[in-house]
Amino acid sequence: MPTGPADSFKQPRFANSSTFARLPRLDEVGDEASVIVLGVPFDSGTSYRPGARFGPTAIRQGSKLLRPYHPPLDLEPFNIVQVADAGDVSVNPFDIVETLQIVEAAADEHLAKGRRVITLGGDHTIALALLRSVSKQHGPVALVHFDAHLDTWDTYFGAPYTHGTPFRRAFEEGLLAEESCIHVGTHGPLYARSDLEDDRGFGFALISADRFSEIGPRAVGEEIKRRVGTRPVYLSIDIDVLDPGFAPGTGTPEAGGLSSRELLQSIRAMHGVKLVGGDVVEVSPAYDHAEITSIAAAHVAYEMLALMVAPST
Amino acid sequence: MPTGPADSFKQPRFANSSTFARLPRLDEVGDEASVIVLGVPFDSGTSYRPGARFGPTAIRQGSKLLRPYHPPLDLEPFNIVQVADAGDVSVNPFDIVETLQIVEAAADEHLAKGRRVITLGGDHTIALALLRSVSKQHGPVALVHFDAHLDTWDTYFGAPYTHGTPFRRAFEEGLLAEESCIHVGTHGPLYARSDLEDDRGFGFALISADRFSEIGPRAVGEEIKRRVGTRPVYLSIDIDVLDPGFAPGTGTPEAGGLSSRELLQSIRAMHGVKLVGGDVVEVSPAYDHAEITSIAAAHVAYEMLALMVAPST
Amino acid sequence: MPTGPADSFKQPRFANSSTFARLPRLDEVGDEASVIVLGVPFDSGTSYRPGARFGPTAIRQGSKLLRPYHPPLDLEPFNIVQVADAGDVSVNPFDIVETLQIVEAAADEHLAKGRRVITLGGDHTIALALLRSVSKQHGPVALVHFDAHLDTWDTYFGAPYTHGTPFRRAFEEGLLAEESCIHVGTHGPLYARSDLEDDRGFGFALISADRFSEIGPRAVGEEIKRRVGTRPVYLSIDIDVLDPGFAPGTGTPEAGGLSSRELLQSIRAMHGVKLVGGDVVEVSPAYDHAEITSIAAAHVAYEMLALMVAPST
Amino acid sequence: MPTGPADSFKQPRFANSSTFARLPRLDEVGDEASVIVLGVPFDSGTSYRPGARFGPTAIRQGSKLLRPYHPPLDLEPFNIVQVADAGDVSVNPFDIVETLQIVEAAADEHLAKGRRVITLGGDHTIALALLRSVSKQHGPVALVHFDAHLDTWDTYFGAPYTHGTPFRRAFEEGLLAEESCIHVGTHGPLYARSDLEDDRGFGFALISADRFSEIGPRAVGEEIKRRVGTRPVYLSIDIDVLDPGFAPGTGTPEAGGLSSRELLQSIRAMHGVKLVGGDVVEVSPAYDHAEITSIAAAHVAYEMLALMVAPST
Amino acid sequence: MPTGPADSFKQPRFANSSTFARLPRLDEVGDEASVIVLGVPFDSGTSYRPGARFGPTAIRQGSKLLRPYHPPLDLEPFNIVQVADAGDVSVNPFDIVETLQIVEAAADEHLAKGRRVITLGGDHTIALALLRSVSKQHGPVALVHFDAHLDTWDTYFGAPYTHGTPFRRAFEEGLLAEESCIHVGTHGPLYARSDLEDDRGFGFALISADRFSEIGPRAVGEEIKRRVGTRPVYLSIDIDVLDPGFAPGTGTPEAGGLSSRELLQSIRAMHGVKLVGGDVVEVSPAYDHAEITSIAAAHVAYEMLALMVAPST
Amino acid sequence: MPTGPADSFKQPRFANSSTFARLPRLDEVGDEASVIVLGVPFDSGTSYRPGARFGPTAIRQGSKLLRPYHPPLDLEPFNIVQVADAGDVSVNPFDIVETLQIVEAAADEHLAKGRRVITLGGDHTIALALLRSVSKQHGPVALVHFDAHLDTWDTYFGAPYTHGTPFRRAFEEGLLAEESCIHVGTHGPLYARSDLEDDRGFGFALISADRFSEIGPRAVGEEIKRRVGTRPVYLSIDIDVLDPGFAPGTGTPEAGGLSSRELLQSIRAMHGVKLVGGDVVEVSPAYDHAEITSIAAAHVAYEMLALMVAPST
Repeated sequence: MPTGPADSFKQPRFANSSTFARLPRLDEVGDEASVIVLGVPFDSGTSYRPGARFGPTAIRQGSKLLRPYHPPLDLEPFNIVQVADAGDVSVNPFDIVETLQIVEAAADEHLAKGRRVITLGGDHTIALALLRSVSKQHGPVALVHFDAHLDTWDTYFGAPYTHGTPFRRAFEEGLLAEESCIHVGTHGPLYARSDLEDDRGFGFALISADRFSEIGPRAVGEEIKRRVGTRPVYLSIDIDVLDPGFAPGTGTPEAGGLSSRELLQSIRAMHGVKLVGGDVVEVSPAYDHAEITSIAAAHVAYEMLALMVAPST
Repeated sequence: MPTGPADSFKQPRFANSSTFARLPRLDEVGDEASVIVLGVPFDSGTSYRPGARFGPTAIRQGSKLLRPYHPPLDLEPFNIVQVADAGDVSVNPFDIVETLQIVEAAADEHLAKGRRVITLGGDHTIALALLRSVSKQHGPVALVHFDAHLDTWDTYFGAPYTHGTPFRRAFEEGLLAEESCIHVGTHGPLYARSDLEDDRGFGFALISADRFSEIGPRAVGEEIKRRVGTRPVYLSIDIDVLDPGFAPGTGTPEAGGLSSRELLQSIRAMHGVKLVGGDVVEVSPAYDHAEITSIAAAHVAYEMLALMVAPST
Repeated sequence: MPTGPADSFKQPRFANSSTFARLPRLDEVGDEASVIVLGVPFDSGTSYRPGARFGPTAIRQGSKLLRPYHPPLDLEPFNIVQVADAGDVSVNPFDIVETLQIVEAAADEHLAKGRRVITLGGDHTIALALLRSVSKQHGPVALVHFDAHLDTWDTYFGAPYTHGTPFRRAFEEGLLAEESCIHVGTHGPLYARSDLEDDRGFGFALISADRFSEIGPRAVGEEIKRRVGTRPVYLSIDIDVLDPGFAPGTGTPEAGGLSSRELLQSIRAMHGVKLVGGDVVEVSPAYDHAEITSIAAAHVAYEMLALMVAPST
Repeated sequence: MPTGPADSFKQPRFANSSTFARLPRLDEVGDEASVIVLGVPFDSGTSYRPGARFGPTAIRQGSKLLRPYHPPLDLEPFNIVQVADAGDVSVNPFDIVETLQIVEAAADEHLAKGRRVITLGGDHTIALALLRSVSKQHGPVALVHFDAHLDTWDTYFGAPYTHGTPFRRAFEEGLLAEESCIHVGTHGPLYARSDLEDDRGFGFALISADRFSEIGPRAVGEEIKRRVGTRPVYLSIDIDVLDPGFAPGTGTPEAGGLSSRELLQSIRAMHGVKLVGGDVVEVSPAYDHAEITSIAAAHVAYEMLALMVAPST
Repeated sequence: MPTGPADSFKQPRFANSSTFARLPRLDEVGDEASVIVLGVPFDSGTSYRPGARFGPTAIRQGSKLLRPYHPPLDLEPFNIVQVADAGDVSVNPFDIVETLQIVEAAADEHLAKGRRVITLGGDHTIALALLRSVSKQHGPVALVHFDAHLDTWDTYFGAPYTHGTPFRRAFEEGLLAEESCIHVGTHGPLYARSDLEDDRGFGFALISADRFSEIGPRAVGEEIKRRVGTRPVYLSIDIDVLDPGFAPGTGTPEAGGLSSRELLQSIRAMHGVKLVGGDVVEVSPAYDHAEITSIAAAHVAYEMLALMVAPST
Repeated sequence: MPTGPADSFKQPRFANSSTFARLPRLDEVGDEASVIVLGVPFDSGTSYRPGARFGPTAIRQGSKLLRPYHPPLDLEPFNIVQVADAGDVSVNPFDIVETLQIVEAAADEHLAKGRRVITLGGDHTIALALLRSVSKQHGPVALVHFDAHLDTWDTYFGAPYTHGTPFRRAFEEGLLAEESCIHVGTHGPLYARSDLEDDRGFGFALISADRFSEIGPRAVGEEIKRRVGTRPVYLSIDIDVLDPGFAPGTGTPEAGGLSSRELLQSIRAMHGVKLVGGDVVEVSPAYDHAEITSIAAAHVAYEMLALMVAPST
């Protein structure tokens, strides 16, 4: 029987634990853990408002109210497998390339032990490191990407590795399964028509926030499932897919995004996909208010965990 | 003709009055009043972020922009009966049981004079006192409960009276009409599957936020009306039924809630029920921003007042 | 070829430029400009929370992330005609009447040079000056008005020119095309039933936020287009048409408004109208958080620009 | 025996009362009152950040922790004479001249009944109205003026009555006792050397914040007392005399001001002057944080009340 | 050689550790620890603004920038003895008396192992539990108490154990050394002259904030040292001894307090006293901004640690 | 006669201009300018809270209230020489070394035209580029450095160029005049005793915040003047030299710093030094409140400008 969160009827939620969802630390459960939550406090790939380096701490703080039973899926995710918090990776804020290597190595080590990893960012640059690691084990993956932006731009100021470019690099490095990837929730203007053309060339389908609002979260879930099929799926969620009203605490906010409920419902509607890894990124607490962004991100990570451990029907 | 709010074409809204909706104080209209707004500045039953003791002051401040004409119902609620602000109950922040007695006694006194009471909380613990009072006069009531949570848990740290337990106590004390109560807007994880099972055992139906989003506010209103029938209704609204984006100023926020518009529309859609009392609780201003939570709560209380005084069709 | 925004792959978005969307200043492009963005930092017509005098600066700051390509309409608005930022009008904060004259004169000057003007407010009082100017050139215009409020009240404290009265004055002055104007997104209580009756007398149709939520943004766009026909359209958007969750930074917030996405989608759905001028008003940054209101307003202005320059189909 | 504040051992400070220091309302004590606190929620004379119209409400909220015993002067100010809260004057936000007349008339009425008035602003414009009233009864008064600024400028945009000009007008109207007035705590740059020359011409002495820091609050008090002698004194305190670190919630902040402790100590050090009226102005709550500015202002008003009622030694 | 803080040249300060000053957890060093930092997340004894239950988490977050070398005392406190973070005590937010017992028992256990305890509050109620524990081992202690308030009131609403009464209870229980205790930094009004008289009766001397500002921190330190002599000293610091400008994040702020520098300097000036225990309380993060209060509190705790381990000269 | 700031009696301060102190842009005055204000929006050298990339915009916004006459020095700095705002340098947020080159080149270009430069940061890394430039023209300079920290550390995570290391690099590169440099206002703990020893080895004297508070700003100014003598002086001011109560908006705050008034007075007290360049850095607006940090920084830059242009006596 896995060790679950601290009992909140005995230990107040505002006391003591600083792990995600008040779960045990990895060093407390060690080899038992088969899913871990990993922080990557890095934001040196940010092009506008920085601060996502404080994201992991904030999301953990925002996760203290999470409870162990998930009503829509009727399961207790922390009872199915051992989930643990593996703390933060010690990144180098002054070196993007080195940090990508550090993060990849950290993920490799966990995967080598048979663990799946849900990452708390950090800016979106780090997704590249995680895709490198996960694709080493699973081969090219079907990327499901919730974001206001495409993140398939080429370079900023000559820099190839930034939070706007991870998925172009991933495509170029062969980490993505062909014709299986999809962006969800994009909104806001782009640089040029060619952004969309390039993106299609990398094998992405796209459900914009506008189209999302027309078809609803269930249909979105169905469309994602058709797109990814039975391939291994990596789910990367940039919190700026939410409207700034729901997620002010982020670095490149765009008006017109999803509501928290829409996002959570569409993750649930993906039930049945083969989720091999995921991340929630771009939470920048200095711009948050009353933890609303980090609470939303904590719920997103919880949905991801439930999706990961839920028995397929 | 009832005395209405201060005339905002003569007295600026930012001047002088500190009553709800700039209505007269109870001592100014006395026996004329048949509906009162009552503050209960109490938060010692809170399990996470406290501060709802400042809720009544904040909701009144947030109510200064309310105007006397209600377009959707085409009525002027303050012209139909005399509504007045009865100020705050002097609670004891260091004694929950005593406070429940103080609040019950205060409500009893108003009900004995033929007044109906809309309460501004304060945390949800106080709903128990109000149900005790209202059921003494009307018998067991049909509880319509908007909330992220069920609030039918048993105890926290051995404490029977907290903001997570009022409706289990109310059930045990026989204050609730059988098979007539309903939760609306629940979202977020629970402690265990048994939470839902217990809750059904207490006679509650449930419309989750997910289901709400599928059927819409009108159908929600219809379903509530079918559930409560012609029984006396007590309407208890925890502001955390709203998504944190709409109500950051609360103590136990859960991502994925209702929008303000959905909440207001579903209250309106209850038009025709026999409303004998109600409350708006869990506004914690220290976590609010630009009064958005207290403005939402003020509009909720206004809808409740309109519902209470509207002629049934 | 028009001069576009500063290249954000060479000059960081957080550097240097303080113009709307990092466009050129008017003095840099001069006679080439056919559409300008004009700030009116004035809030002395405000009846509740002031501060919209800082609106133009805030909206420009919130516009720095705007990019040149507009996916839903598949166009690059700044490439079609020369758009420039004309800076702010030097208003007199101590004299409403004089300010209306100053603003009208400034607009006249631009219109005389064949420029169309998108104004960044400032409180809603200033719309009267802009309607005076635009109707001198185009004759009475079809006003499309997104707002929580009607803004057709008569006087406050005897003052005829305030942010609650511009469109009654505009009607009285014959600036509005008969039976062609429309309010969209109204919500919250009014002073009296006669507010609506008077308003209809001035020739306004009305789509409330409640009705908006039932029919959706496309149908709203269609209804607007039927209402305005081929007449010259002036589009005035009070940011408080949004729910306070999306736009806390405003002066007279009312719970139950539109989402940012709904607002942006309905502007887009007006594609094809003959837009001769417009404004975005009532952004009050002191009440904003993390720029969410000014970012929403910046996107609204961007949609308006796209609507103005888009080739009609 | 005067009626004092509500008993905070029986009624929690966060409950019920919305008067200054939880004192009785004027209508509760009527003719007994010999000192009143009066709100003037007006900010249309503001040249930069507005919002002082919400000052009176904020200062009252910030005064809830004030207790009845004043240790440094060893007295209970509310036991010496009856002090009451007279509410707010109904100003006209759209007409400065009319508002000055309304405020003057309101003050006249109180003075005619033998009451002394402490005013909570509002912007500094209103001091002119209060000087007009108080000088009608006492003749020209010795003005003691704590402020970052001189407030003896001539006009802004042609407007003679603004928050930067009240004391030049007062001088011109003969309201000030010759060679008896003094500015305290000025800091920040000025428009021109002539500002200081003009000011001296109006009969003002000056203790800058720099000099204040050299001689300390006791010596400042002594210097003020020498300046005013036995003349009737009007004490006008602009909260921006404090450094922005102590008073962020104000409209024209200047770095380098006094600390709260220095300000309170220097008021106490004026003990013995004949105080006939006073004001605390320029609290703009939208820029405040955690009520620190309004708490400072509440303490300032409390010191002023103590100074006013303390028996002279 | 004690285990010190995580090396911030290898692990970024914003990564991983959530202990005070990034020190090891107690379970990592166990029997080696001779000084521990202990959180008590409790605020049910609060009479005004609650929220200090989140104080320990906030102070730890605010302590991440602390470095190991203390220049004024020229020592490395974490190298002299093993210091560790013992996490939080699991209090009962619904029972003050039980919580006092829990906290006392927790402290007893540490003291029994020869550890000295620095407590992070939490509201001031908990100081009673800590004095009970420390006096069991050391006999009555000399209490050095920095606070805006006396905290020797009797009861609130009949409650004997609140944050305003711990030291009266301590006196009554014989926990305080006679004529050896002292309040430092009191400011703001009191309930009555008898507050001071009672307080002297309990054996307290007093250096008010006013007197502090006259004599300066060195003389304050000397006066404290004369007062406590060679007795065991317990140092209790309510963060509201600071002016609200330096510590907005607290529950009962009073204008006119100390600066952070004055507080830190006066603690240092106590060098040589025999410090057997201490606490920093009343940090309420919901009212804080940019962590300024929790950073100040973290520095205060660090000074206390340095004072505790510094070799006496 | 130099062109001064926009006339604020004609153009409201909240309108139009976005330059420092509402001065002309460099392109408006060109060759006339002999002193310029230059923004460097860069924060990739930050080790803790980032965000100083938005510093230049924020300081300019905070400078809008600055007026042209400086009372303590009795001069109008913008009338003595032409001062202009040269906008921001286009840095590369993803490359520290390249950015140092870009900044150095930009400064070189201005210096080559005989201009002196006051830089608005940005994090402290950029001071190295400015010292490289200024020492090319003036030879090694006497560095006067106000800061909480020494900024003479060696590397972080192997990175030689960060905001904690610029002055060690400057020393190694021979940019600093021997035995002429001085730190002022240091406070907070250090990594090790060797930090101070190393620092002295680089030729720095030191006036800690503690010593500053004992001797006062005049004596500090005198001590600085003795230290620098007649050498060319570069004045680098990290805003974190202020206590967090005065400057919350910064990245590595340490409790116990200077007040704004102390800082401004000590700059003034340096009157007579030969100031050849300077910077104000580390303003991070996301952590600021009500612009208090950026207002303080704007006043600091204004004092620096006055110091630079004041005729030596």
